[in-house]
Formats: sequence, structure tokens, C-alpha cells
Amino acid sequence: MADVTALTNHQVRLAARPVGLPKDSDWRFVEEPVRAPGAGGVTVKVLFLSLDPAMRGWMNEGRSYIPPVGLGEVMRAGAVGQVIASNNPRFSIGEHVSGGFGVQTYCTIAEADIGRTGLTTIDLAAGTLPQWLNALGMPGMTAYFGLLEVGRPRPGETVVVSGAAGAVGQTVGQIAKITGCRVVGIAGGAAKCGFVVDELGFDACIDYKAASVREGLKQHCPAGVDVYFDNVGGDILDTVLTRINRGARIVICGAISQYNNTTPVKGPSNYLSLLVNRARMEGIVVFDWADRYREAVQQIAQWMREGRFHSREDVVQGLEKFPAALNMLFSGRNFGKLILQVADL
Amino acid sequence: MADVTALTNHQVRLAARPVGLPKDSDWRFVEEPVRAPGAGGVTVKVLFLSLDPAMRGWMNEGRSYIPPVGLGEVMRAGAVGQVIASNNPRFSIGEHVSGGFGVQTYCTIAEADIGRTGLTTIDLAAGTLPQWLNALGMPGMTAYFGLLEVGRPRPGETVVVSGAAGAVGQTVGQIAKITGCRVVGIAGGAAKCGFVVDELGFDACIDYKAASVREGLKQHCPAGVDVYFDNVGGDILDTVLTRINRGARIVICGAISQYNNTTPVKGPSNYLSLLVNRARMEGIVVFDWADRYREAVQQIAQWMREGRFHSREDVVQGLEKFPAALNMLFSGRNFGKLILQVADL
Repeated sequence: MADVTALTNHQVRLAARPVGLPKDSDWRFVEEPVRAPGAGGVTVKVLFLSLDPAMRGWMNEGRSYIPPVGLGEVMRAGAVGQVIASNNPRFSIGEHVSGGFGVQTYCTIAEADIGRTGLTTIDLAAGTLPQWLNALGMPGMTAYFGLLEVGRPRPGETVVVSGAAGAVGQTVGQIAKITGCRVVGIAGGAAKCGFVVDELGFDACIDYKAASVREGLKQHCPAGVDVYFDNVGGDILDTVLTRINRGARIVICGAISQYNNTTPVKGPSNYLSLLVNRARMEGIVVFDWADRYREAVQQIAQWMREGRFHSREDVVQGLEKFPAALNMLFSGRNFGKLILQVADL
Repeated sequence: MADVTALTNHQVRLAARPVGLPKDSDWRFVEEPVRAPGAGGVTVKVLFLSLDPAMRGWMNEGRSYIPPVGLGEVMRAGAVGQVIASNNPRFSIGEHVSGGFGVQTYCTIAEADIGRTGLTTIDLAAGTLPQWLNALGMPGMTAYFGLLEVGRPRPGETVVVSGAAGAVGQTVGQIAKITGCRVVGIAGGAAKCGFVVDELGFDACIDYKAASVREGLKQHCPAGVDVYFDNVGGDILDTVLTRINRGARIVICGAISQYNNTTPVKGPSNYLSLLVNRARMEGIVVFDWADRYREAVQQIAQWMREGRFHSREDVVQGLEKFPAALNMLFSGRNFGKLILQVADL
């Protein structure tokens, strides 16, 4: 086994807690030798990093579903890579793996941290490395369990999803179509809306940058909205609340419109529609479903093999692009699941 | 059978749609002869009227769970009274009944309208006439099904209820205590808080007029909040959202703090706590549970007989007091279920 400590690990660490949109000065680029894996440990060469809206929340202080990233620590990120050193019989050199490797080019995981890191071997027969960060990764798992277990769509119902061209949205809509629902997306720009309808098979997609979401919902959801899968919050959530049906389910997955607020989050003024319509608004955190990831991966991989399910990734090259690439999420400049490639294959 | 058309019916009709708090000019007092019951019909002498926060919503135009009261129509209200004329074998003269009789001193119900009016005989052995508008009436039914079927408290959990001394709140808290929960009320003023703790047996009550709700929740809900039954909305809802536990259930029953707004409703800024805590916010409309009212009435009446359940009504005298009495709800000047007595017994 090669001596990994001769390699240089390029890292992006959190230098300051951002106020509003993260700035370059909120990050610090660090180089240090790769750590040796130690007894039972593993060293991974990181290949692709997942860039997710949730990362913005992890940068804030305060109580949440996981502790914040500490100042000076390597930024947390999901990733895929390849084992380059292993003292653990469960992981062989050359195997592809996924896990919370962080924004760095190498990740050494001590034996005691393997569970916490979520280190798992992945099968490239089921999907490509970028797909393992998209439909077969956290966004796919979030979509699968959030839609099916919290939203609980029934065939013939109308499902609306915001951020429809994004990582979670594209999977939510396709699973809802497979379930037999009418599916209407909300996305920004004609290109994304065209992709969602033409390539993913949604029934319609409302371009919130060009048209009234209210009018779009009236036109494309003539029977009202039974399930709304919300990735954006803000005005769009409020507008959808005016169109929900009795017994509707609203899945709160995220609120990307609010993550860089320097003023308080905009609460949904129309929340009393929940009362009038005996409707429900409920949050999802994907980690709760870890015991069932395997089931979801197998199902989505099968749909992909059958040609019934597609995915789109937007891959940016180079660790040094991390700060700018992350901010693409908040202006909607990414098109599909945003991924940072940090090493040549 | 006496000729009821010789009697005068005193009515309060909706004259204008209020902007903000209802004004005297939004009402019109009308006198007209009592209508004859006709074939299969019934005439009721109204004795007590239920005054409820929901009435404010019925005065607004727009889509809701029931149509608004039309301009010029008798104001909708639940009530109890006594049959004084009947052409229907199901209702005998002298029987006590409840139903949606409206804000008037007599109500004649055609045979075809008996179902819609909810005309039902009531048994004064189970409770007094005012209690039939409180724990055995709509507020009691709302509390029973909202808490047990939507909130679903488990023994040992912490239940918080706002408007704790009000009609719905007093019943929610007592049922939660009987379920084996820790119960913390939120109410305005030392007298109400004392009543809730000393007479109804809540574990604690936070006086939102005198103290910080946030500090009160920290002190009295050391294990967090599992069920929040919300009657008030606004800042109190937002504060409770910061203290909920994983998997918490928030029952949206009303939002009395917002009903007279002339600005948009204050949405809950902290709604993303639903995501972080995988929690649920869900609306209740009591009419959905009509098939099971009998079960709830029997259960609550039994608890009352056993001395395990108490109720408090605040009875105002005289139909002419209707406009002022209704507005007592919005300033919290009522103490217990607010009832208007419109006839001598």
C-alpha cells in the first residue's frame, strides 16, 4: 500500500459564518499532507462533491437537525471517490465509495468514524459517479421518501414540485409520474421548464421568472393541488397554499429562497389554508430513512435501466471553484444537480 | 299548537362586511313576525347563543370551509333552545334542542333544512344548556377530535394549548391531562392562568400578557413540546415553533390574533422548524367529525359526572349586547366560553 502521507490534501475550510450570500472571505483554502488511515481506517481520493442548498444551513450557528460546521473545519459535503488505502477488510483499494467526505481532495476515515461518515461502496453498474450524487444519492433519497412517505400521492392526484429541474425536484416529479399523478413543476427559465416537460415527462412546468405562478397553477392544476413538494419557500409556497385541495399534503424539504436572508424568514401568510382545507405541512430529513436507502436505490436504478427515469447533472470542474459554484445554487444558475469534480478520473 | 306568527322575532343581520374589528354599523337589528313551521317544520325559541372566534371568518367574503354569511342575512350562530311549535314527529314541544339557529330570538326550520341546521335534541341530564354550547357542543367537539385525532398525544408527552381558558382550550387541556400528558396552557392574565391551573388541573399556565412566552416554555416544558394546539396564531405560534420536539404535531384550530387584521396574516417565520424537527402542522374543521359527535359527547359527559372534567362559561345577557359581546373575544375580555343569553328560562 502506497504511503498516502506523501500526497497533498487540498481543502476548503469554513473561515467565517456568512451573513447573507457566502463571500470568498468566508472560506479558507488549506493544503496539508493526507493523513494515514491507521488501524481499520480508509483513505479515499475524492472525485465528485455534491453541492446542495442544505449546505448553507450547515454554515449557520444554532440548533438544527445536525450540528453546524465548526469555524476552521473542513466544509461538510457528500461526495463519491475511490479507495486508495485501506486497513479495513470491508473496503478494498480501487473500490468506489460514497460518504460525507467534505470539501477536500482526500479524506482519511478512522475506523470509529466509518459509520458517522456513511462510508459505503457503490456499484457503477447501477449509475455513474455523478448519478450516485443525484438520483442514487441524497437528493434521490430525499425525493423518494419525502414524496412517497410524507406526501403520499395517490394515482390521479395532482403533484406540484418547486425547484423542478433541480436535484430533488427532477426525481420527485418523475416518481410522481410513475405513481400515476398529474405532475406540474415550477422552475426558473424556459430551458429548465422545457427540460422538465420534454425530457422528464412532467405534464407542465411554470416558469416563475416569466409568468404568474398563480395563473400557472390555475391553468395547469384545474383540479387543485393534492401534494406540494416545496424546495423553495417564500412567495411560491404562499401562492401554492391558495390552490390546495382538502386533505392536501405539503412536504417541507427546503426553502432555498430564504437561506441567505439577512431579515427573518418569510413565514407563509396563507398557512390558514391548512385549516380551511384540513391539510398538512410536514418536514422531511433524509437521514431518518437511512435504513431504507438500499430499497430506494434499487428501485430508482431499475427505473433508470428501464428507461423510465432520467437524470441531469451540472458538473463544474476544480476544487478552487467551490465558493462560486455553491453560490450558483442560490441564483438558480445551475441546471440539474450541481456537482463539483475535484480530480481527474 | 300556538300560533307562533303572533310572536316577534328579534334578529341581528349582517349589514356590511367588516374591515378589522366589527363595528356597530356592520350589524342591523330587525324585528319581524316569527314564521310558521309549515309541514314537517319546527319552531325553536332560542335561549343561548354561542359566540365563537370563527364567526369573524364567516363575515368575510371568499372561499373557506363554509360559505360566508350573505349581506342582509341573519348572522350565523350555534345555539340551544326549546321547541315551541312542531309539525315533525322527531321533535316535540318543550324539548331542548341545539343547532345553527342564528343570532335571533326564534328560529323556524323547514323540514328540508333540518339536516343542514343540525337540529338535534339535547339531554339536560348530560349537561346544562350553556355546557351544551361548550364542552358538549362545537368547542368540545373541536377540542376532542382536534387533540385526539390530529394531535394524537401519547401519555408522558407535553401538550401546550393557547387560548387555554377559552372554550376549546379548556377542553383540550383537560382531555390531555386525562390522556396522561404534561399540559401547559397559554392565556392572558393572572385570573385565567390561575383558573386553568387550580380549577382545570393544568400543570402550568403562561400569562402571555405578563411574561415572556419563550421563557415560560423553557421553564414549564423542560422536555420540549410534543403537541401544540393553536387557537391564536401570530407571535405565540412562532415562539412555540422554536420549542417543538422531533415528530411534534401542531394542530391549527384557529388564529384569533389575526382575524381582525387589516394587513396580511402573519405567517409563521419559524415554520422551517417543521423541517428540522420532522414535525407536522395540520388543520382541523370540526364538521368533518359529525358522525362521531355522539361518542365525544358521551365521553365528556361521563368525565363531567365523574368530577374529572370542569367547564366555565361566561354568559352575557340580551340579544342587543351581541355586537359588543362578540368583540369581547378579540380583546380577551371573556373568561371561559362566551355565551349570549337571549331569553329568560
